[in-house]
Amino acid sequence: MAAGQARGDASVIRAVSPADHDAIWAILEPVIRAGETLAIPRDMTRQAALSLWLSSDRTVRVLEEDGAVLGIFYVRANQMGGGAHVANAGYVVAQHATGRGIARRMCAASLDLARAQGFHGMQFNFVVSSNVRAVALWQNMGFAVVGRLPEVFDHPALGYVDALVMFRAL
Amino acid sequence: MAAGQARGDASVIRAVSPADHDAIWAILEPVIRAGETLAIPRDMTRQAALSLWLSSDRTVRVLEEDGAVLGIFYVRANQMGGGAHVANAGYVVAQHATGRGIARRMCAASLDLARAQGFHGMQFNFVVSSNVRAVALWQNMGFAVVGRLPEVFDHPALGYVDALVMFRAL
Repeated sequence: MAAGQARGDASVIRAVSPADHDAIWAILEPVIRAGETLAIPRDMTRQAALSLWLSSDRTVRVLEEDGAVLGIFYVRANQMGGGAHVANAGYVVAQHATGRGIARRMCAASLDLARAQGFHGMQFNFVVSSNVRAVALWQNMGFAVVGRLPEVFDHPALGYVDALVMFRAL
Repeated sequence: MAAGQARGDASVIRAVSPADHDAIWAILEPVIRAGETLAIPRDMTRQAALSLWLSSDRTVRVLEEDGAVLGIFYVRANQMGGGAHVANAGYVVAQHATGRGIARRMCAASLDLARAQGFHGMQFNFVVSSNVRAVALWQNMGFAVVGRLPEVFDHPALGYVDALVMFRAL
């Protein structure tokens, strides 16, 4: 993967600044509006989406390549109290940049971040089963399907589809 | 179950008023402090616990029997957007009133409430597996185990134990 390596070398994963908000919304808006992968209202406003994604209980990073923000992800505790040793994470890639390994790089970085923060595992609560590329990628990144939630996602084109719970130890 | 029926006749499930806050906290505090069943910090304050349990995205009910509040439960959407047709619920019974069918009555009421609100199913995200009485009750109420989360709960006496994801259609 020489080309992938070269791209990887030109990219950086870094914390978010207020100057990134336009770029983050440009990534989130089409994915939210499409409503095919995230359990987020399709009509969510920019302000609500940024408040959700940048909420204080999350550690948020963006992936920047040649000055352009191409992806965003967060890591947080999935539960409080006795469940606080397991992380949750979420990722969104700019639609024009899919298929280039950006989700994979962000996932790898999120696993490193979660390990550094002392988490023992990472759990995805709601992976839409029709998002087969994501499911395959998470499996490739070491996540196992530990639950299947029947018809819990109302896909705009496919109707009710299952969602998966995925987990890996750290 | 004549005795159970008689108790059931003397009980009412109703909305919460500010006058209930002391009684609700009296129910929640020992369960939160014990840390054996809920993924909530054991040192959570009264104010934080009431804010959490009575938050505006929840429909909350108490079970009152002979003027005493013996249990509290909530129903809410488990996810937003494409996942908003599935409910989530949670229940806490006063420690001095366990074993009397109060959780069962609250669960039945929560299913009715969720149906009336138009939900298609109900999901419990985090049933601590060592809470065997709860697991058995939910199964008896029609819930199936659809996921097992490995060692995601740090039980104060047992150490890391699994949690279950449970689901039933409505």
